[in-house]
Amino acid sequence: MAPPADSPARPHPDGIRPLLERLSQRFTAQQLLTGKGQTAPFESDGLTAFRTHPGAVVLAESADDVVDVVRLCHTFGVPFVARGSGTSLSGGSLPIEGGVVIALNRLNRVLRYAPQHRVIVVEPGFINLQVSKHAAPNGLYYSPDPSSGPVCTIGGNVAFNSGGAHCLKYGMTANHVLGVKAVLPDGEVVTLGADSLETAGPDLAGMFVGCEGLFGVALEITLRLLPIPERYHTVLAAYDSLTKAGDAVSKVVASGLLPGAMEIMDRLAIEASEAAVHAGYPLQAAAALIVELEGAEEEVAAEIPLLDEVIRQSGAYEVRVAKSPKERMDIWIGRKCAFSAVGRLSPDYIVQDGVVPRTRLGEALTTIEALGREYKLRIANVFHAGDGNLHPLILYDGRVEGQLEHAERLAGEILRMCIRLGGSITGEHGVGVEKLAYLPEMYSETEMALMNRIRRAVDPAELANRGKMLAAASKGA
Amino acid sequence: MAPPADSPARPHPDGIRPLLERLSQRFTAQQLLTGKGQTAPFESDGLTAFRTHPGAVVLAESADDVVDVVRLCHTFGVPFVARGSGTSLSGGSLPIEGGVVIALNRLNRVLRYAPQHRVIVVEPGFINLQVSKHAAPNGLYYSPDPSSGPVCTIGGNVAFNSGGAHCLKYGMTANHVLGVKAVLPDGEVVTLGADSLETAGPDLAGMFVGCEGLFGVALEITLRLLPIPERYHTVLAAYDSLTKAGDAVSKVVASGLLPGAMEIMDRLAIEASEAAVHAGYPLQAAAALIVELEGAEEEVAAEIPLLDEVIRQSGAYEVRVAKSPKERMDIWIGRKCAFSAVGRLSPDYIVQDGVVPRTRLGEALTTIEALGREYKLRIANVFHAGDGNLHPLILYDGRVEGQLEHAERLAGEILRMCIRLGGSITGEHGVGVEKLAYLPEMYSETEMALMNRIRRAVDPAELANRGKMLAAASKGA
Repeated sequence: MAPPADSPARPHPDGIRPLLERLSQRFTAQQLLTGKGQTAPFESDGLTAFRTHPGAVVLAESADDVVDVVRLCHTFGVPFVARGSGTSLSGGSLPIEGGVVIALNRLNRVLRYAPQHRVIVVEPGFINLQVSKHAAPNGLYYSPDPSSGPVCTIGGNVAFNSGGAHCLKYGMTANHVLGVKAVLPDGEVVTLGADSLETAGPDLAGMFVGCEGLFGVALEITLRLLPIPERYHTVLAAYDSLTKAGDAVSKVVASGLLPGAMEIMDRLAIEASEAAVHAGYPLQAAAALIVELEGAEEEVAAEIPLLDEVIRQSGAYEVRVAKSPKERMDIWIGRKCAFSAVGRLSPDYIVQDGVVPRTRLGEALTTIEALGREYKLRIANVFHAGDGNLHPLILYDGRVEGQLEHAERLAGEILRMCIRLGGSITGEHGVGVEKLAYLPEMYSETEMALMNRIRRAVDPAELANRGKMLAAASKGA
Repeated sequence: MAPPADSPARPHPDGIRPLLERLSQRFTAQQLLTGKGQTAPFESDGLTAFRTHPGAVVLAESADDVVDVVRLCHTFGVPFVARGSGTSLSGGSLPIEGGVVIALNRLNRVLRYAPQHRVIVVEPGFINLQVSKHAAPNGLYYSPDPSSGPVCTIGGNVAFNSGGAHCLKYGMTANHVLGVKAVLPDGEVVTLGADSLETAGPDLAGMFVGCEGLFGVALEITLRLLPIPERYHTVLAAYDSLTKAGDAVSKVVASGLLPGAMEIMDRLAIEASEAAVHAGYPLQAAAALIVELEGAEEEVAAEIPLLDEVIRQSGAYEVRVAKSPKERMDIWIGRKCAFSAVGRLSPDYIVQDGVVPRTRLGEALTTIEALGREYKLRIANVFHAGDGNLHPLILYDGRVEGQLEHAERLAGEILRMCIRLGGSITGEHGVGVEKLAYLPEMYSETEMALMNRIRRAVDPAELANRGKMLAAASKGA
């Protein structure tokens, strides 16, 4: 499978032109976009600060289309990136300059649905939230719920091992992907994993999930479905300090409860969210904590008194319990819209994504607060507190000369703090192009070299999503 | 990290002798075993039909010992295998002829225990069951429970992604390993993963688990602990046909229940187990089904009526419910001793391990029955029915010329059936040396080549556990 040393996967001396010729023989003008006007909508993704020009965009309509594009890219040594809805916040679906974008949105079919096995097989362009909608008539749902769920695709979720507010109890995307049929960077098609978590040989499906497109393009994804919880119990608690809210999270965990979600928003995040969606959050609070129990009717009923007690002892000055599905939705809308709502407070902001061990949340928040004062920038905090996943939003004004760079330096200091506290530079948004420089700060040279060796074993010419995740390191390795 | 093409990791022309010299400088005579008399206890593992002679055994007492042995093996191009308690049923810890065995039993310390985080860090020689014992005072336990739990080590569990009767609800070893510090085959030490499931870059910890020792030796393993369930509800149901028991499993799953364990034993397994431990199983039954609910008091209480109804409708002719912890233990002892008990029925037997999709259990059992008749060999069936993991025990008499080979052919036909039905050639015992020939039947050439490329990216000289899992394939790739 590795290309013979003397033949393909070398850049063609005429650049992308010979590839474009072959693509135009294979695809109609409706599927193959090449002019700058046509490819402009693909120049950026959720990380809008970055912008590059692809050499071509192919709107794939079938798995065969994808395989053929990858094979041709391999033959002509042209790099490619697969793209779903382009919601990556780390630039993961940013085009490679002069490379090919393989757009997967039209690959949005359900290939197999077996509710009795609690399994669904979808194409990579299938929308996250549609999985749960599809399974709802059978009392099932798909657990990982990124805030972008209504638009983001399962292919992208797989590439970035996406999380969400409800990943505390049942895990991230990797815990729900049973198998992946994929085209490797050399155009060969493989099936990794199966309908079961039990398989033979190295766990390649597990490795594929979270690889940010470096190992090829998923063509079919087998997802595990869960029974819809019989009952939710959603509590919104208000605190006069962020530390108290952070401590409450530790206390809930120490009590033995395992909620479906535990989220914190600070004053600035609450202010923004309220201005946008009027979910009824306590505007005077220094921090709001959302805790949601979920499970069987009796299980939740039994857990409620314990949660009440823990919350009471944590020093919340106001506690609201959702009394209806509508009240529950209101609480979640306030949380899920917090990112976009922050746009109302500031012309520009950076969404940061880092992880610290749960017990060091308080320390991390104090440091972030101090950094905000030092840099004279406002920071709104929204985070998946249950797993220590911070999302500081750094507010700045891009029209002020140098303020973007200033905000980026602050963001970098937050990431270094995450590394120092034993956490990670990304919880769910990925490394992409945004954090290329930080990965080697988190890993040793040996660890970086190991990743690069494995990457090159799969893709010696580094065609798949070239320049992302391992790019900076691969030069030195 | 990859050795320069012209220097190390090439077999030394004088064989193992120069390595032995260096090892004898580094280790005492108590730690370094070389004579045949000394190394004899290490010539075999749980797959007793195989036996090879190691060139040396090093009894490691520290992580540094392990790292130094691996580095020396790398320098002299000598293959090595790490070994815990040697309970592998697929020959995974069988010595490599003339290579080095690194014995890890003395590396059995707890390095960090943080019950408030539900995390424990242990050395690879730590015994599986001891993890739960260590955590019990804090109301915690370690979920994966192979039948060899009282003797097998966590290092071996990691290498083989071990399962057990209670892996239905919470998953196999891979779902409970958060991080691994390991020495790679070239002697470099890396840290893969961390205290959290959220990390950056490819999921190398996930890949390390289940790699059967091909990616190096674990030095420290971070395990996730779970709260001990408040309540168990254990049911033993007797059926007059194996098919009915199999169908009952599907019905339990379809009902929305997710038991902690669902096990089936057939008539021959019951007979053997009863003769050995007198657990009180129904001797007339064609099949016994064990279903165990576990969880919060109220949750289990709410599930019991539903389970009762499903079992009643499944046609069980006798149902026994454990009324005390002692009665529960009796039921589990009957199941957990079934393998060894079969030794009373037959001078020899092969323990097979394969997986079929849960819904095709009935079909699989019918085929196994027919194969038994065709081959004129008795087959006892014990299986983790909840996840379709079959353990047929093929009874034969090794003293009869040709009967081992006859039994092995039958075992092979069962594996091929597993592949045909869309399952796996191993659920938890691994490929080892036993199933080398079957892996290429389960995977395509492309898939085998991908695994081999990744393996060689980590270990170009194939020193780590050479000859296992990917050995047969690596020749052709």
